[in-house]
Amino acid sequence: MTQEIDAYRPVVGDRTVSTIEEAASDVADMHILNINSTYRGGGVAEILDRLVPLMNDIGVKTGWRVLHGSPDFFKVVKKFHNALQGDDINFTSMKQQVYLETNEAFSTYTHIDHDCVIVHDPQPLPLIQFYEKEQPWIWRFHGDFTQPYMPVWQYLEQFVSEYNRAVVTMDTFKRDSLSIPQDTIMPSIDPVSLKNTELDEVTKDKYLKKYGIDRDKPLVTQVSRFDKWKDPEGVIAVFDTVREEVDCRLVLLGSMALDDPQGPKVYERLVEQVEDRDDIILINDENDILTNILQRESAVIVQKSLREGFALTVSEALWKQTPVIGSQVGGIPLQIADGDNGFLVNPHDHADVAKKIIYLLQNPELRQQMGENGQETVRQHFLITRQLHDWLSLIHQTRQHQS
Amino acid sequence: MTQEIDAYRPVVGDRTVSTIEEAASDVADMHILNINSTYRGGGVAEILDRLVPLMNDIGVKTGWRVLHGSPDFFKVVKKFHNALQGDDINFTSMKQQVYLETNEAFSTYTHIDHDCVIVHDPQPLPLIQFYEKEQPWIWRFHGDFTQPYMPVWQYLEQFVSEYNRAVVTMDTFKRDSLSIPQDTIMPSIDPVSLKNTELDEVTKDKYLKKYGIDRDKPLVTQVSRFDKWKDPEGVIAVFDTVREEVDCRLVLLGSMALDDPQGPKVYERLVEQVEDRDDIILINDENDILTNILQRESAVIVQKSLREGFALTVSEALWKQTPVIGSQVGGIPLQIADGDNGFLVNPHDHADVAKKIIYLLQNPELRQQMGENGQETVRQHFLITRQLHDWLSLIHQTRQHQS
Repeated sequence: MTQEIDAYRPVVGDRTVSTIEEAASDVADMHILNINSTYRGGGVAEILDRLVPLMNDIGVKTGWRVLHGSPDFFKVVKKFHNALQGDDINFTSMKQQVYLETNEAFSTYTHIDHDCVIVHDPQPLPLIQFYEKEQPWIWRFHGDFTQPYMPVWQYLEQFVSEYNRAVVTMDTFKRDSLSIPQDTIMPSIDPVSLKNTELDEVTKDKYLKKYGIDRDKPLVTQVSRFDKWKDPEGVIAVFDTVREEVDCRLVLLGSMALDDPQGPKVYERLVEQVEDRDDIILINDENDILTNILQRESAVIVQKSLREGFALTVSEALWKQTPVIGSQVGGIPLQIADGDNGFLVNPHDHADVAKKIIYLLQNPELRQQMGENGQETVRQHFLITRQLHDWLSLIHQTRQHQS
Repeated sequence: MTQEIDAYRPVVGDRTVSTIEEAASDVADMHILNINSTYRGGGVAEILDRLVPLMNDIGVKTGWRVLHGSPDFFKVVKKFHNALQGDDINFTSMKQQVYLETNEAFSTYTHIDHDCVIVHDPQPLPLIQFYEKEQPWIWRFHGDFTQPYMPVWQYLEQFVSEYNRAVVTMDTFKRDSLSIPQDTIMPSIDPVSLKNTELDEVTKDKYLKKYGIDRDKPLVTQVSRFDKWKDPEGVIAVFDTVREEVDCRLVLLGSMALDDPQGPKVYERLVEQVEDRDDIILINDENDILTNILQRESAVIVQKSLREGFALTVSEALWKQTPVIGSQVGGIPLQIADGDNGFLVNPHDHADVAKKIIYLLQNPELRQQMGENGQETVRQHFLITRQLHDWLSLIHQTRQHQS
């Protein structure tokens, strides 16, 4: 189960792997350390779980430490995270104390003699204060901090400004006022993971049967958390218009974020809306293989979000040669080239979204062409190998700045 | 909040601290690494959370890494742990695979260049297989593996035998057939933690009032999980006999282990037994401060277990100058000197247990003398400073063996 770069050769080709190996050789004498705050659950842990073993496999000694925090600490940093994304919070000195003490305690037994330290998100951000900084430190932020709640940002900025660089996930997430250099490294999907790898027909049949999904009619699917910003009710409204023209099924696959108090309400309303309908299938589950199958077997994937971070679900579907109709928000326009591998839409213009879905359902050849284009988009820009290469280059560059 | 050795000077005296500092100087050039499988919850995390920062404070660079495991992994190792303590389990090759793969994955990004590695319990035990062993490795087992389920033991023994030493918590927990040297380091309590530190009257009053505990009559208390092996129903039976002679109250403070399916049943039966009784107070809570207060304010502490590991609750109470009446099982006889700081009893002889409680309730001067003796027992043998010293000596000794 250890990640190996060779597993990616059939997917990205030997030349890409060689480029990565070359980039790795530039930093092969370095010892890198990643620090985040969880080894399981959420996108950050998911990517480190893949990237860190790969870094080691290509010869760059890379460690991964996880901050030890109490439940109180995690409540506090969740609030800080929300504040960075714009929420007003009650910013007490008690919160600051819990935040600092947790980081200080961890620093007492976490000995850093590495050549580069990469700190992820706000939880371990102040760690830098408790070390004699002898190497470049990089702060990787996975969210959007361009419209923060200012009292919290001003407090956190004092730590950020001690870093050598900050790395964000999209160019538009850079923050003008920040005094240190900012780079962009976009997220990526892993083509050899269970969520994205090819699957055989037996597995597909087994899962679709288990979840009661018939393939007698074309499937239109949205894979997204049940949350108002993903607008699942809007998707149903659009689907009703589509159904006037084309006989098809809608699948809504999602789950509820544990920390979203409104999730269950959104889901309950959906349950009411779809009961007595055999053309809408609502699935509340987190299952990588089912996600994989639906992204492969659907005629069209929809991502009708009202707000988004990066929306990697788009790349996941494109990779499987399925065209995606997605909103012009967050990272979606970076992944969808309008008319080439899907369509970009205004999520509030339901008539237009329905029109695009109908158009694709009625044009199987176009779907196939767009599907091929979509896979190529992802191969070029959104695979983990690209992200791996980006990190190697950035680390190399950071070292050059240093010396 | 960082642990500092100076905090223990008023408790154990400068001389003990000097002895520790001397022992530390013998290994001050070493870099030690602890590896366990959780940074929170359970006794192992609790002790590492104290010991590791202390080691660093006295000048011994000591790290602490936590194995990254999936929920499946934790289910498997929980079964292994139970098997080591004697349970038959279904020992499949799938379980072995999950066990090994988790350890292997962790090894890919956990770079060990330390001078001594201490691995705790069975979860990270096979890690040793994935390293070129260039330093002494010590396996610390916190349970009793003298009556294991043999198929699991034979499997685990292949890993244990690669270690330089094993360290158990009691001499009787050593396993004759094991080929490597075995040492004993007994557990300990931390006198400066919230659970054991002195408290002011205002805090005591506040908590006792909050939990409805009146101090108008002497308190007899057992602090223990609600679990059949702690025999809380037997304690109630004993208390009924005591009440025929002395007017007093019984407090049963405990909680249910999350992984014990029988806990709720034991607790429900207790709830039924004590309703309509104002002389028995049943509290289902885990609260360090309340535990501290009850161990201080009770006239007698009872530990009427039918089976035990070490039972640190006994030392916790003795430290607070409260005599303890405890069963002759597990580690209890190591802590109670019969007639000196409490009484050792046969937990099945209810008449005798009642007799001892009555005797203590009727002799306040004896209680005071025993209380003073008890605190001295703990000061000499069961404080964290002793455990710290034991570890320093063992590490030093291990190095001497090596060279």
